[in-house]
Amino acid sequence: MDQWKTISKKVILQGNRFLTVENHTVELPDGRIIPDWQWIITPDFVNVVAITENERFLCFRQTKYAVRGTSLAPVGGYMEPGEDPLQAAKRELLEETGYEAAAWTPLGSFSVDANRGAGVGHFFLARGARRIAEPKSDDLEEQELLLLSRKELEDAVAKSDFKVLPWVAGILLALQSLSTGNNRSFEKSTRPI
Amino acid sequence: MDQWKTISKKVILQGNRFLTVENHTVELPDGRIIPDWQWIITPDFVNVVAITENERFLCFRQTKYAVRGTSLAPVGGYMEPGEDPLQAAKRELLEETGYEAAAWTPLGSFSVDANRGAGVGHFFLARGARRIAEPKSDDLEEQELLLLSRKELEDAVAKSDFKVLPWVAGILLALQSLSTGNNRSFEKSTRPI
Repeated sequence: MDQWKTISKKVILQGNRFLTVENHTVELPDGRIIPDWQWIITPDFVNVVAITENERFLCFRQTKYAVRGTSLAPVGGYMEPGEDPLQAAKRELLEETGYEAAAWTPLGSFSVDANRGAGVGHFFLARGARRIAEPKSDDLEEQELLLLSRKELEDAVAKSDFKVLPWVAGILLALQSLSTGNNRSFEKSTRPI
Repeated sequence: MDQWKTISKKVILQGNRFLTVENHTVELPDGRIIPDWQWIITPDFVNVVAITENERFLCFRQTKYAVRGTSLAPVGGYMEPGEDPLQAAKRELLEETGYEAAAWTPLGSFSVDANRGAGVGHFFLARGARRIAEPKSDDLEEQELLLLSRKELEDAVAKSDFKVLPWVAGILLALQSLSTGNNRSFEKSTRPI
């Protein structure tokens, strides 16, 4: 199967620093041309499912503009330009919760929108988390830090208390990794990310 | 915790039928005003994890513009204006695979982007699927239909062969539902969706 080819691209909306939209002219494998394939550029982001030394999952209850009421959420945020995903994950965990973690496992990286891009989400499991500082989040939203047991987390997933797609995906990736034991961490690995 | 309030909105990009961008003026609970909160409007969509009468998972291997190489994918597509999510799910399953399913379980609905919207994904588990027609997909991409065992599906998830966030989320929601038995279907329910 052949990839589509980008013939040309042009910025059609330069929004604030979180959003740019391009128009791409695209060629399909059979030679057809699509002149108006629109491509969304938003920052890549990380989500971190962090588990404390006492086997509690660090989660927030928070408001978000796209969500009715409150939602549960894992740690997460946008990557800075040029930042490495693991570095961003560690920074967000420390900033948002004041915790650092002993063992980090990558859970995969996924395009948000198969057609239009809209950034890539990088997901991590962080174990052995312990509090070393006060949180200093610069988020605009109100949020409350919760320490959930695995049972409480699984119940929250079943009730759709994680209302945003990357958040529920991150939690499920972490649970899948914990269940299958497929969570070899960087702690014991000499391979760079 | 209080929601943010939308004070005013204005279309700043009227793209093709798949994309509109608005600029919102937003008021935070503490009274601060954000004048440039950008809001992405793309169609809501469905993803369907369909299992045949022989316990095989219907998946595609396909190319997508935002994906390098090929990715595995569940059935899915955009909802038509005014279409009900379950109706869209049944339509997409039939169009893309020629299958219909006996039992449908909703797996939840999730905002794609907690900040900017970008549509809502509706996820379903469909069991007892059997082929009743030829597929007649209008998708532009090349794709190949696969019938995976549960083991093959779980291995594919572990290898990140589902490269797009809603797709891996849909598969994990379905596996979670199957594992917990939390999959009461519409088949036996008299409650409307």
